[in-house]
Amino acid sequence: MKPDFSKELLTTVVVDAKTKDVLMVAWMNEESYNRTLKSGQTWFWSRSRKELWHKGETSGNFQDVVELILDCDLDTLLIKVNPHGPACHTGHRSCFFQNVEQEGK
Amino acid sequence: MKPDFSKELLTTVVVDAKTKDVLMVAWMNEESYNRTLKSGQTWFWSRSRKELWHKGETSGNFQDVVELILDCDLDTLLIKVNPHGPACHTGHRSCFFQNVEQEGK
Repeated sequence: MKPDFSKELLTTVVVDAKTKDVLMVAWMNEESYNRTLKSGQTWFWSRSRKELWHKGETSGNFQDVVELILDCDLDTLLIKVNPHGPACHTGHRSCFFQNVEQEGK
Repeated sequence: MKPDFSKELLTTVVVDAKTKDVLMVAWMNEESYNRTLKSGQTWFWSRSRKELWHKGETSGNFQDVVELILDCDLDTLLIKVNPHGPACHTGHRSCFFQNVEQEGK
């Protein structure tokens, strides 16, 4: 089973293999997908910097790949990882830390 | 805390509030985000059909919102839900069911 790179970048959801927490969302082109498979660590395509990005290359917080699972449309990838450290550049373990207040709750 | 809709659609990751499984990834425009907040159920923007989409309106598998969490960049949203049924149009509970074979594993 392979991703469909014909339409656009692959949306990638990274979760902690142990806690199941969602750590971050990032994007992959075919080259970063292939590097991820080959190296066993996450590689992404930075849409802002327009370059390949080995997660952790600056911070040391690499992510070791445990499992890769494609969605029904083959355009979104779920990656279970063992993270070496925080996923977020802010130092938070996960990029998702800002709660939205809901009406009536 | 509010999403940033100035750049593009909001990428949304839907997880099961009880099991923490990732159920699906979809996109929101500002109108679907507002409807989600107001109704307490997930609304998305269908990029293929180019229309608002109340998840479950056809299948009955609505998703009741438990918690909404924005990422550090305010352009990705994590939604914890209690789903009424399978998230995937294939009948799978989650859209992520196709494992990628890794080299050397």
